[in-house]
Amino acid sequence: MIYIHTPSDNALWLDLFGKALPDAVITAHPHAVDDTAVTTLITWRAPEGLFARFPNLQHVFALGAGIDRFLDRPDLPAHVNLYRLTDAGMAQQMIEYVLFGVLRFQRNMDGYLRQQQQALWQGLPQRAAAEMRISVLGMGELGTQVAQALGRLGYPVTGWSRSAKVVENVPCVHGLPALDELLRQTDVLVCLLPATPQTRQLLNEARLTLLPAGAAIINAGRGDLIDLDALLALLDSGQLQGAQLDVFPAEPLPTGHRAWTHPALFITPHVAANTLIGPSVAQIAARIKALQRGETVDGLVDRARAY
Amino acid sequence: MIYIHTPSDNALWLDLFGKALPDAVITAHPHAVDDTAVTTLITWRAPEGLFARFPNLQHVFALGAGIDRFLDRPDLPAHVNLYRLTDAGMAQQMIEYVLFGVLRFQRNMDGYLRQQQQALWQGLPQRAAAEMRISVLGMGELGTQVAQALGRLGYPVTGWSRSAKVVENVPCVHGLPALDELLRQTDVLVCLLPATPQTRQLLNEARLTLLPAGAAIINAGRGDLIDLDALLALLDSGQLQGAQLDVFPAEPLPTGHRAWTHPALFITPHVAANTLIGPSVAQIAARIKALQRGETVDGLVDRARAY
Repeated sequence: MIYIHTPSDNALWLDLFGKALPDAVITAHPHAVDDTAVTTLITWRAPEGLFARFPNLQHVFALGAGIDRFLDRPDLPAHVNLYRLTDAGMAQQMIEYVLFGVLRFQRNMDGYLRQQQQALWQGLPQRAAAEMRISVLGMGELGTQVAQALGRLGYPVTGWSRSAKVVENVPCVHGLPALDELLRQTDVLVCLLPATPQTRQLLNEARLTLLPAGAAIINAGRGDLIDLDALLALLDSGQLQGAQLDVFPAEPLPTGHRAWTHPALFITPHVAANTLIGPSVAQIAARIKALQRGETVDGLVDRARAY
Repeated sequence: MIYIHTPSDNALWLDLFGKALPDAVITAHPHAVDDTAVTTLITWRAPEGLFARFPNLQHVFALGAGIDRFLDRPDLPAHVNLYRLTDAGMAQQMIEYVLFGVLRFQRNMDGYLRQQQQALWQGLPQRAAAEMRISVLGMGELGTQVAQALGRLGYPVTGWSRSAKVVENVPCVHGLPALDELLRQTDVLVCLLPATPQTRQLLNEARLTLLPAGAAIINAGRGDLIDLDALLALLDSGQLQGAQLDVFPAEPLPTGHRAWTHPALFITPHVAANTLIGPSVAQIAARIKALQRGETVDGLVDRARAY
C-alpha cells in the first residue's frame, strides 16, 4: 500500500496518484490506514515519528530534490530506500531564478531601482555577458542544466563538484584545491550544492574572501553552505557587490535578522524551484511501476554520500 | 574624408576608426576640418546644423539602431545615404534586458522585494514559462533575436510586424487587425518597434485595454509607441501587472513626472542596448570598405519607411 503525507493538498495528490497508478492501493493523510500494510511512503517534510509508524516500509519518495532533512532521522531505518525528485520541472525554474540574479548583477538593475527612487536618469556601468565569469557549484541535474543555459546565453561558465564530472559544453573542475582557484576567477558564484557534512560551511570566510572585488553570490542550494555572517561582513565592506539568497541556515529567516534589511541582499523565501505537482506525480508513479517490474530507478539516495 | 562627431570619447572613436581604416583620411570633432572635403559623417545625435556644414556629404552613419531623430532634419538632404547600426552587440544586450523583465514579472520578483521590506517569508503565485505568452512587436534584427532567445528558454513567443515576416522558430503575424487579436492573448508585451509615423501611439488606450488582466509591458523601442497616460491609468486600476520602460516620450523623463514613483513601473534610463564602441567601429568600417568597392551594404535607411 502507498501512503501520501504532504502538508497540504493531500486530496489533490491522492487523486493524481490514483489516476497515474490505477492498480495500486493508495491512501493519503489524514485518512485512517492499516500502518502495517504501508510499504511505500510519499512525503514532503515527514513529521517526527512518521517513518516509525510503518513497520513494513520499503520505499520513501521525497517530494523535493534535497533530502538532507531525512538523513539524520532515527525513525528511518537504513534498509528503507529513499528517493529524491530529479528535475521534475525544477531545472527550468532554477534556470529562471539563477538567470534573473545574473542579469540583475550584470546589468546593475538594483542600481537603477535605487536611482528611480531619486528620479535620477543616469547610465550605470555594466559588463558584457562574455565578461561575466560564472561558476556553478554543484553539477547535479539542476546545476548542469543551469550551467548549460547560461553558456547558451553567452556567459563563460565553469562547473565545480566534489568528484570529477564531464558535462557537455561546460568545462568542469573538481575538488577543494580547484575550488579555491576557481573562486579567485569568479564574478558570479552560483551555489546549487546539496547539504551534506562535506558541504556545510564550504563557503566560509576564508573562501568567500577569495572572490574578486565586486563579485556576487546566488545561493539556491542550502542555507548552511555559506557562512552568512562572513557574507554579510563582505557585503558591508563593499568587497562583494551583492547576493541573491533563497535559502538560509534557519527557515523562515527570523523576522529580526539583519539580512532582511541589508541593501545588497535580495531575499526570496525558498521558492527558486518549487515542487510541481504534475511532473512530480508522473516521475514518482513511473518509478513505482519500474520497481514493481524489478527494475532499478533513478533518484535513489546514497545516504552515506548524503545525496 | 571621414568626420566623426560624438558627444564624448571622440578621441577614442578616432583612434579605433584610424586603426580599422588605415588608408582613410579621418578627423574627429572638435578638430578643425575642411568642410568641403567631408563625404562621410559618423555621428551620434548630430547637433542642429551639423549636416548643412558639409556640402559634399554622401554617407551618414548613425551610432545607434534608431534613426528617427534624423528623419525630419531639414539640414539632411534626401540624396544623402543614412545608415543605422544593425545589431553590433545590441541584440545580446536587448535579449538580456527583455529577459530580465520577463523573469521579473513571471517569478513575481518585485513582490518578493516588497515582502523583504516587511521581513515577510511567504511564497507568491508564479507561472510556468510555458504559460507566459509573449508577443514581440517589431521583428527587425533585435526583435528577431529577442523572440528566438525567449523561445529557446521555453516561452511561447509570437512576433508581430507591420509587414509579413518569416522568422525561424517564431510564429509571426502582421498588420493592425492581427495586432488587436494578438494583444488579447498576450501576457508580456515586448515593444521593440522603431519610431515612425505609423507606430506613433500604436499602443493607445483602446489597444492597451485589449491586454488580458494581469499582463505586463516591456518597452525598449521608442517612448512614443505607447500612450503613457493610458498605461499609467491601467497600472493604477490594477488591470495590468506592471511595466518595465527604458524609453519615454521625452528623455530624460522629467524629474517631477509621476511615472518615477509608480510602484508598478520599473524605469531604466535608455540603457537597454547601448552602442558598443568595438563592434560599432568594426561594422561601420566594414561598410565603408564595401562602399569603396562599389558594393551595397546593410543598414541603409529607407527614409520613407522610416527605418
